[in-house]
Parts: sequence; C-alpha cells; structure tokens
Amino acid sequence: MTTKPKFAVIGGGSWATAITKMLCVNLDEVSWYMRNEEAVNHIKTYKHNPNYLTGVEFDTNKLRLTTNINEAVAYADYIIFAIPSAFLGGELEKMTESLEGKIIFSAIKGIVPETSLIVGEHFNKTYNIPFDNIGVITGPCHAEEVALERLSYLTIACGDAKKAKIVANCLSGHFIKAKISDDIIGTEYAAMLKNIYAIAAGIAHGLGYGDNFQSVLMSNGIREMKKFIKKVHKMKRNINDSAYLGDLLVTGYSVFSRNRMFGNMIGKGYTVKSAQMEMSMVAEGYYATKSAWKLNQDYKAKTPIIDAVYEILYEGKSAKKVFEKLTDKLD
Amino acid sequence: MTTKPKFAVIGGGSWATAITKMLCVNLDEVSWYMRNEEAVNHIKTYKHNPNYLTGVEFDTNKLRLTTNINEAVAYADYIIFAIPSAFLGGELEKMTESLEGKIIFSAIKGIVPETSLIVGEHFNKTYNIPFDNIGVITGPCHAEEVALERLSYLTIACGDAKKAKIVANCLSGHFIKAKISDDIIGTEYAAMLKNIYAIAAGIAHGLGYGDNFQSVLMSNGIREMKKFIKKVHKMKRNINDSAYLGDLLVTGYSVFSRNRMFGNMIGKGYTVKSAQMEMSMVAEGYYATKSAWKLNQDYKAKTPIIDAVYEILYEGKSAKKVFEKLTDKLD
Repeated sequence: MTTKPKFAVIGGGSWATAITKMLCVNLDEVSWYMRNEEAVNHIKTYKHNPNYLTGVEFDTNKLRLTTNINEAVAYADYIIFAIPSAFLGGELEKMTESLEGKIIFSAIKGIVPETSLIVGEHFNKTYNIPFDNIGVITGPCHAEEVALERLSYLTIACGDAKKAKIVANCLSGHFIKAKISDDIIGTEYAAMLKNIYAIAAGIAHGLGYGDNFQSVLMSNGIREMKKFIKKVHKMKRNINDSAYLGDLLVTGYSVFSRNRMFGNMIGKGYTVKSAQMEMSMVAEGYYATKSAWKLNQDYKAKTPIIDAVYEILYEGKSAKKVFEKLTDKLD
Repeated sequence: MTTKPKFAVIGGGSWATAITKMLCVNLDEVSWYMRNEEAVNHIKTYKHNPNYLTGVEFDTNKLRLTTNINEAVAYADYIIFAIPSAFLGGELEKMTESLEGKIIFSAIKGIVPETSLIVGEHFNKTYNIPFDNIGVITGPCHAEEVALERLSYLTIACGDAKKAKIVANCLSGHFIKAKISDDIIGTEYAAMLKNIYAIAAGIAHGLGYGDNFQSVLMSNGIREMKKFIKKVHKMKRNINDSAYLGDLLVTGYSVFSRNRMFGNMIGKGYTVKSAQMEMSMVAEGYYATKSAWKLNQDYKAKTPIIDAVYEILYEGKSAKKVFEKLTDKLD
C-alpha cells in the first residue's frame, strides 16, 4: 500500500475552497490554512466556508484547519498556494518552516508585486526551490462551477511529470478532469495575461463595442499571447490548448470576471482609482498589465492590446481614443 | 476616373440587408434581389426591410430593387449570394442569364444540400466558374450589429487578390473593417464548421454543462477545425485569425445563434424533428454536420465533437450519453 501524499492548501478564498473540495474527494486528510480565525471556526462548526462557495459542504473530519501557516507547511509534501498574488509576500514573511524538499504548486493567477515575477519564478529565485519542485494549477475554471460540481478541466504543469501526475490524480474526480503539462512558465504567463485581455474586453464593452468586436479582440488576444509567451519561454506548445485559449475564453467572456468588470467601469468613464474603490479590491490584471508591459520593453513582442490597456490604466489616456487607434491594429 | 464596380446582392434576409447597407456607404447604386415582392414594395415606400434589420434606413435612390434574379445578374459584375444554402439551388434554377465573366461572392455559411459542396466549390463544379472569380465574405459578424453600426471585421477571400481588394473596399466603412485572404476553401469551411460547434455548445448548455466546459469545448473545437480544414485544403493559415477563431467564437458564444438554440433544445430533450418544428427553420449546422461527417469518412481527421453531434442528430443517440463519452476525448 502506498501512502497518500500530504497536501496543504494556503488561502481562504473561493479558489482555495474549490481546490480543497477537489482534494477531499480523493484524500483522507487535507491541511487548510487561512488567516481568518472566524472563518476557520465557522467551517469547524457549520462545515462550510462562511465567505466563499458557501454551498460547498466539507467533511470536517478530513480537514486539518489552521490559522498558522507554519503548521500547514510542516505537515505537507505538496503545498498549494491559492491566495491573491498581492498577499503572497505577506504570507511568506510569516513562514519560519523551511520549504526545502517541499513541492510548491501555484494556483495564483498573477504577478508577485514585490518582484514582478510570476509565482513559480518567485519561488525559484527567492526561495531557491528547484523548478522540478514547482508546479502550476490552471483552468479554465471558475471556482463557482466547481462548487456546483459542473464538469471542469484543469491543467497541472510541473517540470517533473511524476509530481504533476500525483497532483492531477488528487484533484480529479467526477466533476474534474486534470491533464498534465511540462510548460510551467507558459501556463502561468497565460493565466496572468488572460486577465489583461479580460480587462480589454471589459473596456470594449463599456465603450459600447459589441459581440462582433469581442470575438475579434479574443482572436487577436490569443495571437498576441502566443507571441508574448514565445518570447518569455520558447518551447513547443499548442496555444489553443485549454490552459491557454480555454483560460482566456472563460475569463474574457465571463460577466463575473473581476478583471472584465474593472475594465467595463473604465470603459464607462470611471477613473482607475474610482473603479478600484468601487470594486473594493484591485483586479489581478491591473498589476499584470504593468508587469507584462515592462517585461515587453525588453522582449519587444507585438502586443497592441496590452499596450492599449497599459496606456489607459497607467498613462491616464482616454479609453475611447486608445481603443479607436487599437481597432486599426487588429484584424 | 475609374468607374465603380457594379454589385448585386441576392437575398432578402438579415445578412443580405446588412451587406446592402455596407455597399450603400461606398457605391451610388446597388442591385438588390429578393423573392418577396411585398418586401420590395415596402422598402421602396418606407426605406427599410419590413422583415429584417428594420432599423436600417436605405437611400432608395441608390437601390435597384428587383424580384427578378436575372435582372440583378445581368446588371452586376460582382454578385453576392446571401441566402440560406438550402434555397440556393432553387434560386439558381430561375437563372437564365449567363454567369460567364461574373464574379461570384458567397456570403452563405453552409453546404449546398443537393451537392454537399460548400458554395464556392458548388459554383466551380456546377457552373464552371474559375476559382479566380469566386470569393467568400466571412465574419465574425452578426448582421444585427452591422445594423447598429457597431464595429465589425470581415474577411474577404478570393483566389484573385485584386478582386478581394475591390470587394473589401466596397464593404469597408466607419463601422466595417475588411481584410483580404487567399484562403477561399478554408474560410468557407470554417464558416460552415463553426455552426456544428455552435450546435455542440447549445447541446452542452441544454444538458447543464457550464462556462468552464464551454471554454474547453471551444478550445477543442478550434483545434478540431484546424485538423479538418488542413485535410480539406492544406495551406499556410493561422487558424486563430478572425475568419476562423473569431467566427467560431461569435457564433459559439452567441445566445442568438440559431444553431446554438437548436442544440440547446436537443440538449434539453427535444427530438430533432420537434426542435426543427419549434424553430420553424432548419439550422444551417444541421446540414453541415452531415456533410462534414460524410466528408470525414475519407479525410479521417480526428473530430470527436463533429462525430458526437452527428450521432445525436442523425443516429438518434442520447445527447446525455454521447456527451458523457465526448468529455473523455476532450482536454
């Protein structure tokens, strides 16, 4: 009998809740860390997260809930980070337990603001975790649909295929199909870039562009993403795989996407500040736009959509005028 | 001074109306044929089509309206067919005027039922029109958005780039950007195949699959389309261009698409017959499914989605069971 791998999930949001639900299908025990003590107590008593995916009922006998990140890290072989990238730095600062020998999977879709790196690169550069112990969990996957047990597909990327396979197996179930990939860098960049295109889709919608234009925007977006990722990390990949195109579509067409909503407000004439205040949280794509734009000063991929979103969000240019120019660069 | 090319539009539906509107931006005169005499009289009196895109007002001084197809054909150098493929045969039978020397553009998204050919191939094989005089007008483009003058992109494909350019120029305007292509076969097959994927999207929705699955379906759909078209006509093309991926998305994500609606009813448990009766017209994708499936018996491209839709529509298999199997073939 082989012993089951030990997993910890870091985060108390909807994606962390969804991943914990998936793991509980296959494992007898899952460590689950979140900052919020009230939420932990609520889950222990009422068997569901009071703040996210409240409809998901947990078998609390399986959960090792903790508000101490070190307890979770000490317990686990596989640590899945599923918190907004803006909070990652703060959480890692609390860590006194060593990450040596641990396998780190990122379910974060974004850039670490402090280092402007994607999460995998951040762990590699800042914590010396070898790429063979780093992985990425990507969609296309709205956590809300996992809660409803609607069939969803995940891509589990890791330099070490065996580890990817283990994570894929532990997440798979009757409503989850997980495939593996060796493209850690590409899948993670795709997950980050798609948020920029979702902002662009929102801006377009806010400006009054319709479905015809949206489809042209997504068609140009995936071509642009391909060029960008190729510059970052050249390898054989099919950009139309679910982890890239699927992930772009599920976000770019979602009216629930925070990034699309944020863009929509900008398109409707809100300033960046007031749109952010209205949403009470910064959309991941806001940071992603700056990072991608900055990176691309070196890479020099042709990225008219990213450039347009950057000009609107960071140079205060008029969304209407920038998009009028952008439409001439699309085809 | 160069004389302006003479255009005739064949058809009285929404797409024909939209194309006539585009042409009127650039031309002083457009011949417009439709069967329905009442509609012609209505347009002459009230300056709009009574049945489709009723909000579009025409400068009737520019329109040479006729219920005689031969009048339209005799007048024009460029003839744009924009009628359902099922009616093409009937209209062509009325034609006594020769098509020799005429340039035929198809704005039809489908298969000619009598010959199981796409429209370009049909004109080539049945009327000996050389491919240099055959072209295709494709979207992504809902006619309804053209009526609202929402920016839309067209692709104009023709073996003869000069002719493609002329048509592109005559259609372009402040709400239309048209690019040219030399892939007549590929763009027309894409326009036809996308209707099958729209039916698949509808079936999935009807069965209760969600947005996560929809994005996986579209991501697999475009990969499948690429393989299929490559077998039909191998050439260098970027399947993520608007004419292929964009057209797939605008239809596959549209709740107004007849094909998606038809699929949705099938997914909800309607029989094919009752869904067709309910819709009072057969969705183009219904014929496309049979043709694509039949063609693929020779081509042998891996097309699990087309196969699944075929089994449901033509072999009476349970949509639920077929899709359960299909989900294992997607990734």
